Amino acid sequence: MRIIKGNIIFTPTYHKFEVIEDGYIVLSNNTVLDVCKKLPEKYKHYELIDYKDKLIIPGMNDLHCHAPQFRNLGIAMDKELLPWLNDYTFPEESKYVDVNYGEKMYSRFVNEVYKNGTTRVAAFATIHKDSTLKLIDLFKQSGIGAYIGKVNMDRNSCDTLCENTYDSINDTIDIISQTFNKSELVNPIITPRFVPTCSETLLKELGAIAVKYNIPVQSHLSENIGEINWVRELHPDSKFYGDVYNKFNLFGDTPTLMAHCIHLTDDEIDLMKNKNVYAVHCPTSNANLASGIMPIRKLLDNNVKIGFGSDVSGGHSFSIFKTMVYAIEFSKLTWAQNKEYDFLSFSEAFYIATKGGGSFFGNVGSFEKGYDFDALIIDDHDLNFDNYNLIERLERFVYLGDDRQIYHRYVKGSLI
Amino acid sequence: MRIIKGNIIFTPTYHKFEVIEDGYIVLSNNTVLDVCKKLPEKYKHYELIDYKDKLIIPGMNDLHCHAPQFRNLGIAMDKELLPWLNDYTFPEESKYVDVNYGEKMYSRFVNEVYKNGTTRVAAFATIHKDSTLKLIDLFKQSGIGAYIGKVNMDRNSCDTLCENTYDSINDTIDIISQTFNKSELVNPIITPRFVPTCSETLLKELGAIAVKYNIPVQSHLSENIGEINWVRELHPDSKFYGDVYNKFNLFGDTPTLMAHCIHLTDDEIDLMKNKNVYAVHCPTSNANLASGIMPIRKLLDNNVKIGFGSDVSGGHSFSIFKTMVYAIEFSKLTWAQNKEYDFLSFSEAFYIATKGGGSFFGNVGSFEKGYDFDALIIDDHDLNFDNYNLIERLERFVYLGDDRQIYHRYVKGSLI
Repeated sequence: MRIIKGNIIFTPTYHKFEVIEDGYIVLSNNTVLDVCKKLPEKYKHYELIDYKDKLIIPGMNDLHCHAPQFRNLGIAMDKELLPWLNDYTFPEESKYVDVNYGEKMYSRFVNEVYKNGTTRVAAFATIHKDSTLKLIDLFKQSGIGAYIGKVNMDRNSCDTLCENTYDSINDTIDIISQTFNKSELVNPIITPRFVPTCSETLLKELGAIAVKYNIPVQSHLSENIGEINWVRELHPDSKFYGDVYNKFNLFGDTPTLMAHCIHLTDDEIDLMKNKNVYAVHCPTSNANLASGIMPIRKLLDNNVKIGFGSDVSGGHSFSIFKTMVYAIEFSKLTWAQNKEYDFLSFSEAFYIATKGGGSFFGNVGSFEKGYDFDALIIDDHDLNFDNYNLIERLERFVYLGDDRQIYHRYVKGSLI
Repeated sequence: MRIIKGNIIFTPTYHKFEVIEDGYIVLSNNTVLDVCKKLPEKYKHYELIDYKDKLIIPGMNDLHCHAPQFRNLGIAMDKELLPWLNDYTFPEESKYVDVNYGEKMYSRFVNEVYKNGTTRVAAFATIHKDSTLKLIDLFKQSGIGAYIGKVNMDRNSCDTLCENTYDSINDTIDIISQTFNKSELVNPIITPRFVPTCSETLLKELGAIAVKYNIPVQSHLSENIGEINWVRELHPDSKFYGDVYNKFNLFGDTPTLMAHCIHLTDDEIDLMKNKNVYAVHCPTSNANLASGIMPIRKLLDNNVKIGFGSDVSGGHSFSIFKTMVYAIEFSKLTWAQNKEYDFLSFSEAFYIATKGGGSFFGNVGSFEKGYDFDALIIDDHDLNFDNYNLIERLERFVYLGDDRQIYHRYVKGSLI
């Protein structure tokens, strides 16, 4: 049992912040037992960490990013998705055949995730087994929670990244056997890159593995018009892009993340809702790659689960705080064109970044009873120069702050 | 005569970076005399400052911001323009009747401008003469170049900010007599807030003052549909919003900045081009206030002059680097919907931030012969961990960096 004290802010629902000034979070066994304004007598003899005037908020959850694209962050921004993949991304990912290169770059990557206050992450690795295992190790050492996916691709890829179908499957099974349920916080995730780079045989086998082991799935969906047309040419019998994944048990038969979800059909949205498939909103990436704006309000109205992704390095920032700001801003640009869809409020964006995305990792992203204590301690004294209230302090930190204000990070009760 | 050495990058034209690795800038009398890869013999006995592997780029020019909104930066982001003005902005600006409050807050404001690498700025103050004079003083002390405008508003404002027309005019003239051409770097600028808050008498007198003293003008134009409709109701005889300013000599008869320019008519664009009126693009503000996206490519194609504005605090960042990123991203969102308008390239955005906006201040924003030496020295060693070329290093700094990489700042040859 431990007690954490400070200015507590979280979002149990989309629409409202729970704010407890100078409050207490009671932890039992690394999860939240109670949150209160006045500490009950029975807890008074437990260890107390007093963060005084600092803010205590849930950690950030990043549901989509590409660890091996770290080196390319912030360059080649003049490209659209498919040329960007072929000219920059694939050549870089090819280097991860060398596990030493992988270790060097992945160490930097994990450090950036840490620095930016992300406490849980779902990340694509590359096709390479050894580098992927190295990334899993590095996350275990970091204390950050992570789903790490060895990427599968056996068609339409450059020579250095195109796998033999059965090697792809065998390496995937090998990684699972070495890492699945071996760690409380870091686990494998099935990761077909996207439909165009995966044969039907590969997709079918990956779906079977996911279902057999009950392993979650992550991939890309409806990011770009050219990509969608390509999927339609490759799979003319499918009703829509997501239907291809669905046919092979890769669309919600186990917990599933689909990044981008910009150009969805109404049937696709229905299927996502019915199968609890997460739409992962990556606004900076969607702008950088000129993909468009995800219709986030429409998805929320249709009860599709939503989380945020940094999509490093399509996105140029690791910060889920910055992602929050972009998501609000892009929803406002949508609203400016079409008043039918209200823009995201600050509390809604905060909910998506914390409890919304966190739900993919279990009871994560809130300070309600039974939730893992994932938290950031924010020291915003440099931003808080004039009697701002706690919500304003949080808003200022989200809009103006950066890693310099993140004082401490907790994942499942451990200070990391 | 002085020599500055390092990795020099600038944009003499929209379409191309001039890159001189390990090059020399020869300064004579605070302006650029020569830029060269090899230092001519005749310059070899002059003082040389060697910035080694650091980047040397032109300073940033911020053509639109509101100094008294500094306190509200990053709060109340759930509001649209007109409620945001009435509920947050006007009450805060009213406090500047107290020159001590003005001094306290304006000191912080100037410090943020400095920190973010802005070397020239055009800023709105408030209606209050004494606080405005204080802001002018603070900029003089800082070494940053600035046009500072006492705001004029004599109708449709809250009680505490609505001026008597003649007081407004007299205070404006008084500030001009005290400050016009008294400093090489800091000067007054005529600043009707926007059409709805200025009577025709006031606009007419302000235009006359601008022309009489040859003083530049700054205001707002076509930011928001509600605002445009309001202007049309107030001035039913005007052909378009900008026509109201034009009728009163406030639209290019002296150098003129118009912030936002989102919803322009084709005639309005023509007039801006013909009268060399600058369109100041403030993308973060336009998103935060749900105003829309300025059609920047259309304006460029029509040869309208363009600069960037932070629009603090409608915009939430002082950084013109961040503004550059947003401008590129928003142009990509426009392109995603309408392929007729190519998105901004990185070099175009850099040009707008430097030479484009800088031109409002004279020969500013480039390292061509005769330009004022406004420069930032960028120490990006933390971002440059893997053989990036110089353009990639610049791009990474612009996308990923912040004030931590800005090592030195020069304005007109002086290290500030």
